[in-house]
Amino acid sequence: MSDRWSTSRLEAFSDGVFAIAITLLILEISVPDSGFEDLWGGIADQWPSYLAYATSFITIGGMWIAHHGIFRRLASADAMVMSLNILLLMLVSFLPFPTKLMAEAIDITTDAERAAVIFYGLVLLAISVVTSVLWRYAAGHPDLIEPGVGDEEVRAIATLATPRIGFIVAVVLLAFIAPQIAAFGYLLIAVIALFRQHGDTRPAPA
Amino acid sequence: MSDRWSTSRLEAFSDGVFAIAITLLILEISVPDSGFEDLWGGIADQWPSYLAYATSFITIGGMWIAHHGIFRRLASADAMVMSLNILLLMLVSFLPFPTKLMAEAIDITTDAERAAVIFYGLVLLAISVVTSVLWRYAAGHPDLIEPGVGDEEVRAIATLATPRIGFIVAVVLLAFIAPQIAAFGYLLIAVIALFRQHGDTRPAPA
Amino acid sequence: MSDRWSTSRLEAFSDGVFAIAITLLILEISVPDSGFEDLWGGIADQWPSYLAYATSFITIGGMWIAHHGIFRRLASADAMVMSLNILLLMLVSFLPFPTKLMAEAIDITTDAERAAVIFYGLVLLAISVVTSVLWRYAAGHPDLIEPGVGDEEVRAIATLATPRIGFIVAVVLLAFIAPQIAAFGYLLIAVIALFRQHGDTRPAPA
Amino acid sequence: MSDRWSTSRLEAFSDGVFAIAITLLILEISVPDSGFEDLWGGIADQWPSYLAYATSFITIGGMWIAHHGIFRRLASADAMVMSLNILLLMLVSFLPFPTKLMAEAIDITTDAERAAVIFYGLVLLAISVVTSVLWRYAAGHPDLIEPGVGDEEVRAIATLATPRIGFIVAVVLLAFIAPQIAAFGYLLIAVIALFRQHGDTRPAPA
Repeated sequence: MSDRWSTSRLEAFSDGVFAIAITLLILEISVPDSGFEDLWGGIADQWPSYLAYATSFITIGGMWIAHHGIFRRLASADAMVMSLNILLLMLVSFLPFPTKLMAEAIDITTDAERAAVIFYGLVLLAISVVTSVLWRYAAGHPDLIEPGVGDEEVRAIATLATPRIGFIVAVVLLAFIAPQIAAFGYLLIAVIALFRQHGDTRPAPA
Repeated sequence: MSDRWSTSRLEAFSDGVFAIAITLLILEISVPDSGFEDLWGGIADQWPSYLAYATSFITIGGMWIAHHGIFRRLASADAMVMSLNILLLMLVSFLPFPTKLMAEAIDITTDAERAAVIFYGLVLLAISVVTSVLWRYAAGHPDLIEPGVGDEEVRAIATLATPRIGFIVAVVLLAFIAPQIAAFGYLLIAVIALFRQHGDTRPAPA
Repeated sequence: MSDRWSTSRLEAFSDGVFAIAITLLILEISVPDSGFEDLWGGIADQWPSYLAYATSFITIGGMWIAHHGIFRRLASADAMVMSLNILLLMLVSFLPFPTKLMAEAIDITTDAERAAVIFYGLVLLAISVVTSVLWRYAAGHPDLIEPGVGDEEVRAIATLATPRIGFIVAVVLLAFIAPQIAAFGYLLIAVIALFRQHGDTRPAPA
Repeated sequence: MSDRWSTSRLEAFSDGVFAIAITLLILEISVPDSGFEDLWGGIADQWPSYLAYATSFITIGGMWIAHHGIFRRLASADAMVMSLNILLLMLVSFLPFPTKLMAEAIDITTDAERAAVIFYGLVLLAISVVTSVLWRYAAGHPDLIEPGVGDEEVRAIATLATPRIGFIVAVVLLAFIAPQIAAFGYLLIAVIALFRQHGDTRPAPA
């Protein structure tokens, strides 16, 4: 009796959840009725929504690439991988909520900004930690790993897949003092993480 | 003339519906305007929404795994399987509505809580019953089953795929007395069902 | 130079649109705040929403099966098939709007009911006509059809794929006199169309 | 070490985002409560929403075909292609927001119409420019292109994939004078672009 799962349907289902979560983000952006009197002004006033949209879009896009990078190196999934993956998807699907809060809170009061920006950062942190735990668990079970994946590559992915836990903590701490600057910090982390993923390539078979 | 359908497109379509239903759940969570005055308090006040979100996310995730477990054992689908599957998807897609009701009703009045929690349980019950009927129907038609699937495995899946009808009934009854505790009961059932699915593995071909 | 397209990506994209449209329907159902004072009553009062939900869910489910039945018989798609398919998807994606209108209008005034139920029927009619035109166009271009599909099968699908245009017209006319009964008529048409699709099976290769 | 990505998962993920963005458009259309007193009038009053819906649906549908046309000619994706693709998806997913603004602004004031129609056009322009840059970048890197794709075909796609940047600029300029006419101009551009995509066919291997 095998207690292993094929990863192909797991990946297809996860891809669906990532694609939907990333596309739903736009539903939260709108201009209030009063904004139509001076619509260019009304559009400009929504800048925190655009910032939050871009940040979460690039974050989820980067997470999708990281997820893809992990699962194409797995030969199969066991019960722990399945559970960690459901937890990861639950956190990624949750991100539109703190995204909306951050977009609404910016420019209300500094207290609301601080709470929303820190809450957003804590969800980012949870996503990063679960991703990291998922890969480290798999790395510790060589029977789950695709045959061609060497030790060095496993370590390289561990570094890549760990999406900047330290940077996120630093930005969360910054949010206590300057929440608006911290909000831009998340965007910067997302862009850097996206570009770093580009380095994640499997060596072509010789 | 064959009256059989290939299951691959059926599975892909069903996967899409599961992935969308699970990701839409977040759209129902928001903090009212008054919550932004004390945003940490406003975020904390939404705890019934987080409970309902986690419960429905894990329930649908577990249902997806159960659905996958059933359909990869089917060689083909007949008219009855098609109809039961549409009915099952209709109930799974319906779950975001009682999820929203439960999240809104908790902490309003005990009467509202009781109605919402029982209504949620009845939808869970309907999902479980239809899933069970679907598998029992297939199990009774050996020509629908993949050649390699033995009688013992069919019975094991019948047990696994029956998602705790008795437990759901018990929690629904509990909801008459203590609806808030019953709401946590659904979460517990979902988590247990998810872990039990992990045992659903086809023996590797010898 | 070929002016033909492979149908596989067309089908995958169409499947996505069908799956999303069918799952979005639930977002329109909610109980107003006043309904929480007597929540069982509030839930019961939403019956027009459940009727509209079930009707549109089964209609789109049946349309998806019909769409699948058409495209698996096409060897390739030309410019006309592409355009008719985009038009068909646009109409299917539009259905959640008249669904919402019908759910809201029932039990307001008979005038509003009549308008909403007729409008819903006209959209159904447009979907049926475009589906029928799509298949008849393909049937008239033998080079688009899969080699193994015989004349008799083409005619049988023409009958199946024409989703009851006469019945829809009859129910739309009925809506002028008795709109609520006509609303149930659409549900009946959807259920019958779903079961008739079950007869759509390609003969297995001999 | 290769720094190349397979394009198949990239395409599947992009298809998901296109399918979701196109189907979400309908969520923004509704008839206000006051419209139910004379529901045919209320439905008719929503014409700007139908115009915006059809325009964005056909635009995204055409973009999906163009995207498909580009990626099936790519043998692999490098870091730049990945980044440009994420940027393109972010802009396509953003389109429902200016769609909603345009639908709401038409028939409010000419100032609001002008702002909304120009804003919509600027997003269209950004989508077209990024698509064009993406293909031109790939065209300049022969190692990314599928072996069978000739120079002439690369140039033909460059022309096709450039979705009428000049026409969009002209309509944006028209919007300064006559925004309602310009809104219909976008629909015309979308329909023409859709039909021009039909000419995008790879020569069958001889």
